[in-house]
Amino acid sequence: MPDELKAVIDLGSNSVRLVIYQQGPHGTGQEVDNLKQTVRLSNHLDENNNISDKGISVTLAVLRQFQQLCQAYQVTEVIGVATQAMRIAANRDAFLEQIFDATGIRFQVLPGTEEARYGYLAVVNSLAIPEGVTVDIGGGSTEIAYFRDRKLVHHVSIPYGAVSLTREYVRSNPLPAKELKALENVISERLSQHPWLEGLRCPVIGLGGTARSVARIHQRQHHYPLQLLHGYEMWPLEVTTILDMVRSLPLDKRSDIAGLSQDRSDIIVAGSAILDQVLKRVEATQFVISNKGLRDGILVEKVLQTLKLDILPDILMYSIENIQDHFRLNRKHAFHVWNLSSQMLNAIMKLGWLPENRDLNRWLQVAALLHDLGRTVSIYNVRSHTFYLLLQVPLLGVSHRDRVIAAAIASYKTTKQTTVALAEYQELLGDDDISLVAQLGTLLGLARALDRTETSAVESVDLVSVKGNQVLRLRSRQTLDLEFNLAAEWLKKWKKVFQREVRLEVEQVAHSENV
Amino acid sequence: MPDELKAVIDLGSNSVRLVIYQQGPHGTGQEVDNLKQTVRLSNHLDENNNISDKGISVTLAVLRQFQQLCQAYQVTEVIGVATQAMRIAANRDAFLEQIFDATGIRFQVLPGTEEARYGYLAVVNSLAIPEGVTVDIGGGSTEIAYFRDRKLVHHVSIPYGAVSLTREYVRSNPLPAKELKALENVISERLSQHPWLEGLRCPVIGLGGTARSVARIHQRQHHYPLQLLHGYEMWPLEVTTILDMVRSLPLDKRSDIAGLSQDRSDIIVAGSAILDQVLKRVEATQFVISNKGLRDGILVEKVLQTLKLDILPDILMYSIENIQDHFRLNRKHAFHVWNLSSQMLNAIMKLGWLPENRDLNRWLQVAALLHDLGRTVSIYNVRSHTFYLLLQVPLLGVSHRDRVIAAAIASYKTTKQTTVALAEYQELLGDDDISLVAQLGTLLGLARALDRTETSAVESVDLVSVKGNQVLRLRSRQTLDLEFNLAAEWLKKWKKVFQREVRLEVEQVAHSENV
Repeated sequence: MPDELKAVIDLGSNSVRLVIYQQGPHGTGQEVDNLKQTVRLSNHLDENNNISDKGISVTLAVLRQFQQLCQAYQVTEVIGVATQAMRIAANRDAFLEQIFDATGIRFQVLPGTEEARYGYLAVVNSLAIPEGVTVDIGGGSTEIAYFRDRKLVHHVSIPYGAVSLTREYVRSNPLPAKELKALENVISERLSQHPWLEGLRCPVIGLGGTARSVARIHQRQHHYPLQLLHGYEMWPLEVTTILDMVRSLPLDKRSDIAGLSQDRSDIIVAGSAILDQVLKRVEATQFVISNKGLRDGILVEKVLQTLKLDILPDILMYSIENIQDHFRLNRKHAFHVWNLSSQMLNAIMKLGWLPENRDLNRWLQVAALLHDLGRTVSIYNVRSHTFYLLLQVPLLGVSHRDRVIAAAIASYKTTKQTTVALAEYQELLGDDDISLVAQLGTLLGLARALDRTETSAVESVDLVSVKGNQVLRLRSRQTLDLEFNLAAEWLKKWKKVFQREVRLEVEQVAHSENV
Repeated sequence: MPDELKAVIDLGSNSVRLVIYQQGPHGTGQEVDNLKQTVRLSNHLDENNNISDKGISVTLAVLRQFQQLCQAYQVTEVIGVATQAMRIAANRDAFLEQIFDATGIRFQVLPGTEEARYGYLAVVNSLAIPEGVTVDIGGGSTEIAYFRDRKLVHHVSIPYGAVSLTREYVRSNPLPAKELKALENVISERLSQHPWLEGLRCPVIGLGGTARSVARIHQRQHHYPLQLLHGYEMWPLEVTTILDMVRSLPLDKRSDIAGLSQDRSDIIVAGSAILDQVLKRVEATQFVISNKGLRDGILVEKVLQTLKLDILPDILMYSIENIQDHFRLNRKHAFHVWNLSSQMLNAIMKLGWLPENRDLNRWLQVAALLHDLGRTVSIYNVRSHTFYLLLQVPLLGVSHRDRVIAAAIASYKTTKQTTVALAEYQELLGDDDISLVAQLGTLLGLARALDRTETSAVESVDLVSVKGNQVLRLRSRQTLDLEFNLAAEWLKKWKKVFQREVRLEVEQVAHSENV
């Protein structure tokens, strides 16, 4: 086990969650373990808002178990935070003492606005969305934040959550339309107290269990080909449709809904009603799911403090470096391959061979910097492994579509094989994507051949025209027999994908030893 | 890059190959890179068996490139071996000096029998086959060895290879049946000089490019679902069928054969004719493909010398430890989970709940010792990653069928999900396999829950009958709240898959601190 592990325990109104993180060498964090127990603390509040003895003992038992796991991992710091149920608990001070006595962990009860701010932090540091509304639906409260240019503008906590609203308003399942209407009115009225929400017409980003469940249901309904939730996009109206489906089913039928876990089948109606109301009030342009929430917000704040930053300037690069570290990739080689392939891409763009498309650079960046992922599995079938891993590793700051295309570029060999591999991802792709993959895949393949020894033997490459012929001019201080030999196959592909011949030429740099 | 890297360069009659190995902490080796160039050295021999200047310069160029890569990797030892073309080359001493001058590598020309012995060593240390005939079809010669009880009994090299026989006997493509017959007679006559081959009625294991190509063609014809060659099994007659297909096609049509590479399309007829003749003479019971050959034999001999062994006593365990090291798995935890799950399996076997089947132990061993593979990719969708990786990592000493079943056990969650995941591997499975996967998967899942903290908190487990009820009695010095909590879900599955209820009970070991 690695040296420096930290943990966050989030004592929520619906569930208690533990996450254990490993600190990486670039101020980064890798999630190494997590555990969840559904305690429903807000259901253990009596009429005077005292948490019952039963509620206390169940919570203590869970926290002791989490602490047991932290000790086993030799976690050096456990951050404990509590939210709505604890905020309103009359006996919270005594309870917090009991927790401290039992576990040695001092839980901090977060103000609702702080919880909202952490949700915002988690989202703007993990999704490439400049403007949006985050909505974190918990068991006892819902935190909403609005950000623009990635900066926090408004944030608020409202004391309505999936568990508490269920207890008060969802007395039967299926829920009659009239009762749903009543529930929606209550939510809507509360939201109207925050007029800044109205008609923002931006994306709404959903955090927490309700949002994840809605997304999972939608993915299963549509046989979504990727096993990824973070960054998954839906139309706002599709949330309404799912709300309508769940509320019209009795509890026992809801267990048949693919993607909905049993311990959420009762509170999903109230949870998705909150979500739906926020989407409507904002007149959301899109609904996006964030798998990152409160716990991640707390951790990213720590990372940002270490790095002396307010916000991660480049989410994508941050997460790429994280992955490179985790898989022990040769970073120097990866960056050099990116350089060489970018130099070719830039030259081609200047010649106008490819359409102006800012995505191309990002795709090539991801593919080049992570092209060696597959070799960590086995040196046989490397391309398949790279394709598989690029769809699975915790990559942030790119869309699912970006990821699929970058994976295809990184594993490109022939257009035929690419077409087969991408068949099941059709819905994420456009008409020209396969030929773009072939073109960028060829640039990357050539760059890899040119740095086959991983020693930057080829220092740079430029595409020039010599007597009407295209020439890739390489700068090097060395003989390049191996590189030329391996590049030959890619020059053939170049001819196919760009419909133009090209040849290699070496411009020997001064002080060469091997000329 | 890691510290201790070694390389083997094999200067063959058809191709020159480089393999770079990393020395592991358990005397193990992991292949980190390889490179191949098809030089066809035996085609550069003139009528006096002198290698032509052209042949020399092409070979030197390739060896310099390989050396360039070795230097880049900072390889500490390069072992160079040469085979048939060099054995018969009249000017070999001068050529070897030239190679040494150009690269600093002293190539050793292996006697044919040594080459055969290395093929045998590669096979018996990577495939769990006690008796068999290895046949390594090269460009200029074919090495054959017979082993029984994993011990070498006979070995021989015959000076017929895929390239040399093609030059002499395959003058047209397609090859008329009559000319094929002539070729077969030549081979058959030569094989008859080694009467020990006749009617051995054991498996024949094919090494080298011809055998791999035949297997690839067969896999593509049958849409084989696994991307694995090593250990792939075919019926001997299927080799005859493939020989017949290739020889009846003209060269340009052979490029359409899925699985056959272009630089082998001419020599595949002679190569598979040799293979076919050996299979017939042996009256082979089976044809098995080995992806390990000469180079691996050389390296495994070095490993065996370090370990002071003649042969690896347990190929499977050796390769599992290799994989555990490579993926930095927690070995103590892995072995403890194997112990706990084996204890349950043994108790169940005694009760006769499962059929006597020695495979069960092996499947559980692989699944338990490598169950954490998936976590190295991401802590989300861990089961899918484990399933994927177990089908891809370099696991030795088990059949493809074993691998698929072990992967399903290691990633077991529900029988429904298992059925879906195994659908495409149907041809490798028997009728009861899915229910065996569910049963062993449940034992493994329970063992994992019991060692969730990876601290061996549960020391051992036994299945006992208490007043007619089944009880899993755990020995521990600790409180086991977390373990009991996580085990609950697996006890429910236990009830389903074994049709019997079971509960947990702790037998506190003396000196307990937490009772």
